[in-house]
Amino acid sequence: MTYCIGIRLNAGLVFLSDSRTNAGIDQISTFRKMMVYEKPGDRFMALLSAGNLSISQSVREILQLEKLDRGPDQEPLTIWNAESMFDAARVLGAAVRRVYEQDAPALRNAGIDFNASFIFGGQIKGEAMRMFLVYSAGNFIEATRETCFFQVGESKYGKPILDRILTPETPLDEAAKCALVSMDSTLKSNLGVGLPLDLLVYEADSFQSAQHVCIDEHNAYFRMIRNTWGQRLHEVFEAIDDPRWDGGDTTHPLMGGSARYEPMRKISKPGDRIV
Amino acid sequence: MTYCIGIRLNAGLVFLSDSRTNAGIDQISTFRKMMVYEKPGDRFMALLSAGNLSISQSVREILQLEKLDRGPDQEPLTIWNAESMFDAARVLGAAVRRVYEQDAPALRNAGIDFNASFIFGGQIKGEAMRMFLVYSAGNFIEATRETCFFQVGESKYGKPILDRILTPETPLDEAAKCALVSMDSTLKSNLGVGLPLDLLVYEADSFQSAQHVCIDEHNAYFRMIRNTWGQRLHEVFEAIDDPRWDGGDTTHPLMGGSARYEPMRKISKPGDRIV
Repeated sequence: MTYCIGIRLNAGLVFLSDSRTNAGIDQISTFRKMMVYEKPGDRFMALLSAGNLSISQSVREILQLEKLDRGPDQEPLTIWNAESMFDAARVLGAAVRRVYEQDAPALRNAGIDFNASFIFGGQIKGEAMRMFLVYSAGNFIEATRETCFFQVGESKYGKPILDRILTPETPLDEAAKCALVSMDSTLKSNLGVGLPLDLLVYEADSFQSAQHVCIDEHNAYFRMIRNTWGQRLHEVFEAIDDPRWDGGDTTHPLMGGSARYEPMRKISKPGDRIV
Repeated sequence: MTYCIGIRLNAGLVFLSDSRTNAGIDQISTFRKMMVYEKPGDRFMALLSAGNLSISQSVREILQLEKLDRGPDQEPLTIWNAESMFDAARVLGAAVRRVYEQDAPALRNAGIDFNASFIFGGQIKGEAMRMFLVYSAGNFIEATRETCFFQVGESKYGKPILDRILTPETPLDEAAKCALVSMDSTLKSNLGVGLPLDLLVYEADSFQSAQHVCIDEHNAYFRMIRNTWGQRLHEVFEAIDDPRWDGGDTTHPLMGGSARYEPMRKISKPGDRIV
């Protein structure tokens, strides 16, 4: 598995990816899943990938050379001359479809799904920052103010903290911290996600990646997050009152049963009415 | 979807289930997924179910009557005369297999998997408390000191907090609180899980359910948890330092890059070396 997060904020973009790839539990390797395409001053694009590694590596390789025909009067569309991130995402979609044409029939014969998904975000001069989630059919959706982050791969463990914290107004460093907390929860609960991590921060209108770092088990900041977050979570948890019960009448505990619902279905001998 | 949690502690057992059932996103109903089988003073058993509702309801119905042949000299094994929870879980497995025989061929013809899983925990006089996770093939595993909880259904969103908090030494009320926090995260991130909840607490060696409550949106305690937990999580999150960067050299931010890994793969024109 894999876990990648892309966040689009007013202040910029944040990308975080793990690096674990496994084919079964006994074949685990490290492959990094973040790739930057950039012409400083003109365009910045970052690609995160999940799914079948042979597919996502091929897409990554093809993307930088992929051309979409625009008729005889215009030179073909590429990620290097696209005037919008939407057009660049179309090129990525075309690259995914090219790999599909090449590999999907043989994969199908081997009983393997054509499984890959991508987070593709960036900024091209003349346009605001944009971020897309690209599916294995090459179609895509775009992040909006209401949904300002995308996840691919093993996304569920780490989703609650993103849901709770992120808004378009979140500052960049705080969003990076939030992504790392989300990754920490995922690392803790799922062996298919592993270090090192790639963390990249892009500042709006800078047209080149601002900060990136590869985080392994020795990284002091991530170690602090792992220790502090777990410990604080414990403290917060302890500080919340336990439920209290009145001890006698089990259908009306102090915590307040619902008047609308019966408290429990109990069967005390064979043949008892069950509903 | 569904989300159910069963926890086996030294002090007792905790069961929590939601009540949402959906067949597609436009067909959502409320079906409660907890059932208690109990002979006060002799045996207490609780069953939580996830998966196809027609299967789990049938299993629940059949379970109270299911008999396992033990040869001519002994009366058939049932959940009412089983001398161990292991034997009671075997009866549950047999009930699952009976429903499989009745329904699986027709379900298969309709392209529907035989999908159901159960948490089955309790205590029978003469034995310690035990808890089992029963699969759709009727086979099962048992909770141990090392793995003291089971989840069925939409389990990933709420797993990190259980992983962080629960041990066999956790007090009963604290475990109930933990289950509710886990449920809260799941409710927040997944529409397939919904109120009301059934919460049941069993105290060791009591041979009858101690506390149970049906929690809907008016429940004061659960509302307090939902508000407090989200707010405290924000506070803890804010209190953790943001990452700092040195601002200049992006390959060596203050948070410490890894010496073992290159920080990022960047491509700045078509044909750049990618690996």
